[in-house]
Amino acid sequence: MSNLQKEDFSAWYIQTIKQADLMDYSPVRGCIIFKPDAFEIWEHIQEAFNRRFKEEGIRNAYFPMLIPESYFTKEKDHIEGFSPELPWVTEAAGEELEERLALRPTSETMIGNAYANWIQSYRDLPMEMNQWANVFRWEKKTLPFLRTSEFLWQEGHTAHETEEEARHRTMRMLTIYQEVIESLLAVPVYEGQKTPSERFAGAVDTYSVEAMMKDGKAVQAGTSHFMGTKFAEAFDIKYLNRDNEHVYAHTTSWGVSTRLIGALIMTHGDEQGLVLPPKVASRQVVLVPVGPWKKNPEIMEKLSTLRDGLREKGLRVIIDDSSNSPGFKFNEWELKGVPMRIEFGPRDLKNDQVMIKMRDLSEKESVPLDDVLSYIPTALDNMQTRLLEKARENRKQHEYTHINTLDELKEHIEMKKAEGEVPGFVLAGWDGDPETEAKIKEETGFTTRNIPFDPPVKKETCIVSGKPAQYTIWLARAY
Amino acid sequence: MSNLQKEDFSAWYIQTIKQADLMDYSPVRGCIIFKPDAFEIWEHIQEAFNRRFKEEGIRNAYFPMLIPESYFTKEKDHIEGFSPELPWVTEAAGEELEERLALRPTSETMIGNAYANWIQSYRDLPMEMNQWANVFRWEKKTLPFLRTSEFLWQEGHTAHETEEEARHRTMRMLTIYQEVIESLLAVPVYEGQKTPSERFAGAVDTYSVEAMMKDGKAVQAGTSHFMGTKFAEAFDIKYLNRDNEHVYAHTTSWGVSTRLIGALIMTHGDEQGLVLPPKVASRQVVLVPVGPWKKNPEIMEKLSTLRDGLREKGLRVIIDDSSNSPGFKFNEWELKGVPMRIEFGPRDLKNDQVMIKMRDLSEKESVPLDDVLSYIPTALDNMQTRLLEKARENRKQHEYTHINTLDELKEHIEMKKAEGEVPGFVLAGWDGDPETEAKIKEETGFTTRNIPFDPPVKKETCIVSGKPAQYTIWLARAY
Ligand SMILES: [Zn+2]
Ligand SMILES: [Zn+2]
Repeated sequence: MSNLQKEDFSAWYIQTIKQADLMDYSPVRGCIIFKPDAFEIWEHIQEAFNRRFKEEGIRNAYFPMLIPESYFTKEKDHIEGFSPELPWVTEAAGEELEERLALRPTSETMIGNAYANWIQSYRDLPMEMNQWANVFRWEKKTLPFLRTSEFLWQEGHTAHETEEEARHRTMRMLTIYQEVIESLLAVPVYEGQKTPSERFAGAVDTYSVEAMMKDGKAVQAGTSHFMGTKFAEAFDIKYLNRDNEHVYAHTTSWGVSTRLIGALIMTHGDEQGLVLPPKVASRQVVLVPVGPWKKNPEIMEKLSTLRDGLREKGLRVIIDDSSNSPGFKFNEWELKGVPMRIEFGPRDLKNDQVMIKMRDLSEKESVPLDDVLSYIPTALDNMQTRLLEKARENRKQHEYTHINTLDELKEHIEMKKAEGEVPGFVLAGWDGDPETEAKIKEETGFTTRNIPFDPPVKKETCIVSGKPAQYTIWLARAY
Repeated sequence: MSNLQKEDFSAWYIQTIKQADLMDYSPVRGCIIFKPDAFEIWEHIQEAFNRRFKEEGIRNAYFPMLIPESYFTKEKDHIEGFSPELPWVTEAAGEELEERLALRPTSETMIGNAYANWIQSYRDLPMEMNQWANVFRWEKKTLPFLRTSEFLWQEGHTAHETEEEARHRTMRMLTIYQEVIESLLAVPVYEGQKTPSERFAGAVDTYSVEAMMKDGKAVQAGTSHFMGTKFAEAFDIKYLNRDNEHVYAHTTSWGVSTRLIGALIMTHGDEQGLVLPPKVASRQVVLVPVGPWKKNPEIMEKLSTLRDGLREKGLRVIIDDSSNSPGFKFNEWELKGVPMRIEFGPRDLKNDQVMIKMRDLSEKESVPLDDVLSYIPTALDNMQTRLLEKARENRKQHEYTHINTLDELKEHIEMKKAEGEVPGFVLAGWDGDPETEAKIKEETGFTTRNIPFDPPVKKETCIVSGKPAQYTIWLARAY
C-alpha cells in the first residue's frame, strides 16, 4: 500500500483527482475542466441545495456575467477587495469598449442595481433570489477545485425590511450550509463568524462554515454575509416602509462553490484514492462478475436482475462486464471511489450469495442473494453515516485547545511535524486586535478561521498579547 | 380586449414578457436578467433534456469559458464565422495578458483540444459530453430571449470512429430536439438541413429544427452539426483504429438555448399575454378564493386540502389569498400565463364544486369537488396537447406551397400585408446556387430556413432562376 497521502498530501491529492478522472487542466492558467465524474458530484450538490432553497421560498434567476466598472466602484470596500483579482473585457466585436466590463467575481453590484429597480415598497420585501453561475477570480496560486480562476457556485442575494430579518436570513443560510455539507458530503464543519480582516469585501458581518482536511488544513466551505445597508446605500435600494418613509433595505448574500468537491476529496480520500459518500457518487454500486463467468450465462442474468432491482429503488448502479481482469476492475473502481463493489461468480451462484466490499472497509462480507436488495440501501446509508463519523473523529483528534501562547503554538507545529503528524486546528484566545491577528499569520502561517458560536473551551487570554481574550477563535493553515 | 398582438407583434412581445415579469434589461447592452419565472421555464427545459441525454449515455461536464485566441484560429472557417461577434479579455489582475482570451461563443475549440488529449484509441470512442453554459455573441440587434449578447445553452460534443456513427449521432440529436420541443414546449418544428451559407462555422453539414411564430416569422430552435474530420484535423483528434492506424475522429456538436423561451412565448401567447404549456409552467394551477371567503374559514380549508392533494400528485400549485380583488388576481395570473385557475367561493362550497378556467379556453367549467383531484391532471394534459395542436394548425394555415417565382413571393408578401395577415413560411424550389439564395434575401427579406427531409410538396423549379430545382426548401423571415 502507498504512503503518499501521509507523506505528501499535495502530491496525493493531484494523483487522486487525476486517477479518478475528475479533472484536467486547460490552456488557460488556473482554469480547469470539470470532467463528468466531478461534474456529477456538483449536480448532486445542486439538487440538494435547490431543494433547501425552494423550501425557504428562494427562487433561482440568472443575472448577466459582465459588470460595468462603474458599478463595481460604487461600494468602496467591495472594489478594493476584488479589483486585484478581476479579469476585464475591453474589446468586443472588433471595437474598444467605452467602459471596461469585469467578469463577475460575485454579483452584489449587478443584483444590487436590479433590486434597486424592483423594490419600491415593503410589499416587495423580502426579495430573495439565488443563481448558479460561473465566477472569476484571477488567483496567483491555483489548486484544482479548491482555488481556480474560474469556478462554479451559487450566490444567494436577499433584501429585507429590517436588520433582524436580514440577520435571520444570514444565519439561516449558514445553518443550511452546515446541514447539507454534513449530511450530503459527510464533511463536518465549524460554524462561526469571520474576523473583520477576513470579512467579505463590503459586508458588515461574515459567517463561515470551516472544514478540516486530512492534512489538518482548513477549507472555508461556505460563507454567509450580512451587508447591513452598505450595498443598499451604494445602489439606492430604498423602499417605502409601513410608516410611509423611504428607507434603505438590509441585504445579505451567501454562497458555496465547486471547492466543496475539493473539500470532500481531502476529507474522505485514502491511500487507495478517492472515497465518495454514497449520496453524491455517480456510481453507488458496481457489480463485477468474477471467476469463469462468461461460461455460465446465469451469472450475468442474475447480475442484470440485481442491477435492475437496485435501479428501481433509485440507486445508481453499473455492471462492469468489460474484458479486464477482476483485479484491474477492483483497482479502477477503488481509485474512482465507488462506495460499494459487489462480486459475483460461479461459487457465489452455487452458494446463493454475493460478496460485498465497501470502499471504506477492509473486509468483504458475504450476503445471501435473497437479502441483497434490502441489504444494499442500508449498507450505503451506513457508509454515509460512517464517513461523517470518521471525519468527526479525525477532526476531534486534530483539534487542540490547550495552547495559550504563540511560543506554544510554534512548539506544537514543530512537534507535530517531527511526529509526522498534522498541526490541525488550534483554539486560541484573541484580543480582537487586527495587529495580533496579523502577527499570528506572520509567525506561524496559521490564520484565523472563525469565531465559533459554541467553542469546546472558552479561552481566557490572547495568544499573542496575553491580554484578556475578547474572542475564542479557531486558527489553522488554510487552502 | 387588446389587439396589440395582431397589430404590432414586437410591441406585444415586449409588453407580454414585462407584464409576466420574465425579464429585465441590464446595464450591459444586450445582456438581460432572467427573472425567476423565466428561469424556471429554463430549469424544466434542462430537466427534460438531461433525462434524454442520460438515456443516450451522454454525460454533463464543464469546460473553461475563456478561450485563447490561438485556439480560435486553428479552424479557419470557425474563426471567420465567429470573430465579428467576440468579446475579448485583454487584462486580468492589473496586467495586460500576453494573449487575448475570447468569451466562448461555443466550445468546439476548447473541447476539441481536450478530446485530442483524452482520445488515444478506438476504445475511447465514442466520447460524448454535454455542458450547460453561458455563451457570448456580441450582436448588433438584440431581442430578449431570442438574441442576447450573453445567453444560456447546452452544447453537446461527440467524437466517433466512423463518419456513419457521427452522422447517426447528429441526426439522433435533431430528433431528440424535435421530440422535446414539441412534447415539452408544445412548439411544432420543421426538421431539415441548412444550406451551406447558413451552416455553423466549421461544420460539414448543419441540421436544424425551425419553429413558426404567431407573426409568421421563423425561430431556429435547435441545431445539430456534423463536423466530419475538420475539427479533428485542426485539433489533432487522432486515434489508433482497429487496424492499428492513427486516423482522425469524426465529430459532432449540437445545441439549444434560452431562445426556446422566446419561441414558446411567441407560439402560445395571446392578446391577454403569456400562455404557458403546463409542463414548463412554474405554477400550473392557481387557486383563488372568491366571494366573501374571509367570513367562512371552510373556503380556505378546502382550498388548502385541494392544494396539498395536488402537490402530492406532483403538481405545482399555489393559493392566491392576497387581499387583491378577484378580478385583479384573475388578470395577474392570466398575464403570467398560469395554465389553470380554480375559483372557489361560498356558492361553490354550497354546491360542492369548483369553477375551473383554463388559460387557453374562454369558458369556465364547474367540476364537482369529489372529482377535482382526478380531473385536474387530465385537464392539464389536455391543455398541453391542445396547445401543440393549435400551434400545428396555425402553422398549417401559414404554410404556402403554391409559390413558384420571386414575383409571386413578392405578391404574396404584399397581399398578406394588405390583408393584415402574416406571410408565414413559403416552400420553394431552389437550384442550390448561393447567388440565387442571396437574391431571395435581398429582394424579399426571406431567408432559407431549411431543406425539409419530407416536404409537403416537391417543388420542380428554382424560385429565382427557373432552372430545375435541386432542393425544396422553406423560406421565411427569421428572428
Ligand atoms: Zn493524525
Ligand atoms: Zn393568420
